[in-house]
Amino acid sequence: MSKKKDVVSKETMLVADWQALMRIFIRPDTEATRSILVKYMGQILFGLHDFLKNHVGFTEEISLKDLSGRFTDTLINKDPEKKLADVITDLIEDIAPYGVNTASPYFVGHMTSAIPFFMVHLKTIVAALNQNVVKLETSKVASIVEKQVLAKIHRLIYQKDDAFYNEHVQNTDSTLGCFVEDGTLSNITALWVARNVLLAPKEGFEGIEQQGLHAAYRAYGMERSVILVSRLGHYSFRKAGGLLGIGNHNIIAVDLDENNRICIDSLNKTIKEIKQDSGKTGIIAIVGIAGTTETGTVDPLYKLGEICAENGIYFHVDAAWGGPTMMSEKYKHLLKGIELADSVTVDGHKQFYMPMSCGMIYFKDPSIMDNVIYYANYINRPSSVDLGMKSLPGSREATSLILDSALKIMGSNGYALLIDHGIETARKFAEMIKQRPDFELTTPPELNILTYRMCPADIRKKLSAADSEEKRNINKRLNEINRRLQIMQRESGKSFVSRTTLRIKKFPGEEIVVLRCVIMNPMTDMNILGKILDEQEGIYKNNFE
Amino acid sequence: MSKKKDVVSKETMLVADWQALMRIFIRPDTEATRSILVKYMGQILFGLHDFLKNHVGFTEEISLKDLSGRFTDTLINKDPEKKLADVITDLIEDIAPYGVNTASPYFVGHMTSAIPFFMVHLKTIVAALNQNVVKLETSKVASIVEKQVLAKIHRLIYQKDDAFYNEHVQNTDSTLGCFVEDGTLSNITALWVARNVLLAPKEGFEGIEQQGLHAAYRAYGMERSVILVSRLGHYSFRKAGGLLGIGNHNIIAVDLDENNRICIDSLNKTIKEIKQDSGKTGIIAIVGIAGTTETGTVDPLYKLGEICAENGIYFHVDAAWGGPTMMSEKYKHLLKGIELADSVTVDGHKQFYMPMSCGMIYFKDPSIMDNVIYYANYINRPSSVDLGMKSLPGSREATSLILDSALKIMGSNGYALLIDHGIETARKFAEMIKQRPDFELTTPPELNILTYRMCPADIRKKLSAADSEEKRNINKRLNEINRRLQIMQRESGKSFVSRTTLRIKKFPGEEIVVLRCVIMNPMTDMNILGKILDEQEGIYKNNFE
Repeated sequence: MSKKKDVVSKETMLVADWQALMRIFIRPDTEATRSILVKYMGQILFGLHDFLKNHVGFTEEISLKDLSGRFTDTLINKDPEKKLADVITDLIEDIAPYGVNTASPYFVGHMTSAIPFFMVHLKTIVAALNQNVVKLETSKVASIVEKQVLAKIHRLIYQKDDAFYNEHVQNTDSTLGCFVEDGTLSNITALWVARNVLLAPKEGFEGIEQQGLHAAYRAYGMERSVILVSRLGHYSFRKAGGLLGIGNHNIIAVDLDENNRICIDSLNKTIKEIKQDSGKTGIIAIVGIAGTTETGTVDPLYKLGEICAENGIYFHVDAAWGGPTMMSEKYKHLLKGIELADSVTVDGHKQFYMPMSCGMIYFKDPSIMDNVIYYANYINRPSSVDLGMKSLPGSREATSLILDSALKIMGSNGYALLIDHGIETARKFAEMIKQRPDFELTTPPELNILTYRMCPADIRKKLSAADSEEKRNINKRLNEINRRLQIMQRESGKSFVSRTTLRIKKFPGEEIVVLRCVIMNPMTDMNILGKILDEQEGIYKNNFE
Repeated sequence: MSKKKDVVSKETMLVADWQALMRIFIRPDTEATRSILVKYMGQILFGLHDFLKNHVGFTEEISLKDLSGRFTDTLINKDPEKKLADVITDLIEDIAPYGVNTASPYFVGHMTSAIPFFMVHLKTIVAALNQNVVKLETSKVASIVEKQVLAKIHRLIYQKDDAFYNEHVQNTDSTLGCFVEDGTLSNITALWVARNVLLAPKEGFEGIEQQGLHAAYRAYGMERSVILVSRLGHYSFRKAGGLLGIGNHNIIAVDLDENNRICIDSLNKTIKEIKQDSGKTGIIAIVGIAGTTETGTVDPLYKLGEICAENGIYFHVDAAWGGPTMMSEKYKHLLKGIELADSVTVDGHKQFYMPMSCGMIYFKDPSIMDNVIYYANYINRPSSVDLGMKSLPGSREATSLILDSALKIMGSNGYALLIDHGIETARKFAEMIKQRPDFELTTPPELNILTYRMCPADIRKKLSAADSEEKRNINKRLNEINRRLQIMQRESGKSFVSRTTLRIKKFPGEEIVVLRCVIMNPMTDMNILGKILDEQEGIYKNNFE
């Protein structure tokens, strides 16, 4: 007993001297100390979980202001102040309770949800191996696995034949895609490549990457370049426009059709207008969205692919959300045309249910990333497996090991069950909303996202009889109700839906505040969704009626 | 016994149906199944470790080609093919052996090294919580902790007073810095901000972020903008130049002085030349390096800060490597002047010994990131704690929890022990190299990085007597020897140093292949370094003599 205690205190003592420091680098060899470290993992796996189980987490038991007030000390302690055991306890008892329980089936507001528990093990393996896939010398097999996993998802999207994949899967000169931090960086990578393709090297010009945008416009007789995406495009496209030097005003927001998809007529009109500009405006890319952030709608990808092909325009698909739908035999047709894209964004931490954070970008042409290649003497040597030579980031963790393992554990059919559940539950939920007199469905689900708003029967009646100015006033009032209702529900801590502002065909020119549900947690069922609506009705009755 | 077995098989069964799928989302409540999941963590913590202990990992027991040949299947299995237990075993037995043991004290070639074992626990906590710090609604306290940790490191760099930090630490309008994937993205973020500061909105111009580089140049009467950095600047600066639309040719590589630091005379001359350009060329930033990737040298930061202040130029410091030296009372003077920087890059996965991957960027002015602000309806609302509104990525994991905990466990003194060990061991190693007749020290360590080459006594004698053409020929031969020697040592799998190509004052106009050592693992001692040199001597004798 006393021996064990001694081991514990040695193992968990503060890092104050060289001996203690060395101990934290040498993983212990004795059974007793090993078992303590494993016990901590148990605390992490279940202590956190047990706590979160009872909280959706966005409670206002303590206000944000009071919470912030607890985290204002800005001096780093010179001496160690805590042992690992205490740090873990603190995280479980003092931090987790004020985090957000994204894993709750009542948390249906954002694209962050429960993940299978094995994902935590897989992330732990990646941390324990601590490979850096920027270069072969710090990763070796992890770089090779990454190339294989990229090929697997590439094949899911593009369905090329065996010969294609045999040629490219482990070819050091081929790049089928890249792992980056998230979907924003994926979209930026795609548009970076697209920009460089449009403004490629030619006689007397070394290329935009080398000489810059100003020289590129001069070489091509251009004054502007644009990217076309629907009004529901993710804000990362504007960010990409700013970052890449194009200017975010040149991300042209194309109008929507009545189903919240990009309006093909508007798009064609825009292309035509640009073409009348005597070549002064270049189109870097047209973007199709497979699952818009706000409404989950899918643009007509096949049609967009045809338009791009006809006009020789780069075609990018943002499938950060919807990509994994391709694993569902039942619903993959919703993404028809994605295979025409020059590049496709897919997020791992969304519908691949991976832990934060994992973005991916895929390219139809295995050599197109040569447009953004960088070498360095000490790293990233030509024709090597050094993955960093064609990626926006440098150092990266071996995230591909997680996806590779998850695909083996789940199979595409396992993922399909999740996808199908989300889509079908969202459809049933839409029906439920329609049947409740106090709610109005604002956008039906195409994938597994829908929006609606509190619009009580009496107000709705008034709304339908109102003239356009009265309509605006009623909608203003409804906006305020829905805005406050979402905050109240969030702060009561039992469930969470998000809110956004949409323009809806029904109310031209108006900004409508809507509630937004993302159904991706397999534990979210109709019973839970019913309770969420009940709670909202209750909040309305108690506060607004 | 049979009961336990039953539990095991249920818990680890393949995810083939809805019931099985649900089970992987609900963390188990029975002791038996919990203990299995914890046992897996034990396997991960120690199974991996035990295997790696005996391998540096870059062996050629199996060639890269043969290894690649094992990872060519590109079809995702429809049905699950493996249980979690098998996946973990596979990773330990079939993947880890072909990874790289970056944790070995014999692995002294790159900036990836051993990490304290508690880092794996901390990373696991982050995965288990699975917060998304892009917005408060999916992170809450994690965003608040991030703001606090950023303030702590900001204070380490800038040493502002209590009043400053009290005002800004939890101020929703203030941004002291940002976590990004790695140092490359940190440098890109800094130069993105710097570009936008130079080409800011003014009468009749909305700013480069909005209108783009071409319009910006027109508004400012410019034709070119440049970034000045020493020849040893990280390749991410060229990448930033390409990405930001400036053109990577406009990243001007300034000459070095005899100590591999940026040559102040050359820099002043360059600035003067640019200024004679009647304002047609703008200087976006001057970059100082605190620990160059190849030689670990530190630019004269204070002097650079003065030059930038005099000329009204943005000053960025790339301290991705050297930043944590600030925690060493003994050596922090080496970074004097870093507090003058407008922005500073620091990597967490380097000398903060965090797991892959964590980059950070810090800004002196808490409002300067307003130059890259983006809002969206469903996220990132003005004056909120939504951290995503001013970061290059969107979704991000709560990496700050790891750094925060590590600072508490280690204290700055704990980190100082590591820093001091690295610098002092590197100095002793330099002496050892000088005393061995077959080696030549090519760049002495200023921090904890040095370069040298195999240059046997007889060849060195010839070299000193040779004319310049003979010198070039001898150096060519030496380059080939050192290149092959590094590969042979790497492939023998016992130890690892890296190699790069440097220009050295001694041999003007020549490219010299050198061996590069990064001393950051506290277990790397003089005995081990001696053995690494012995091995190199052996390889030379057996293959080149």
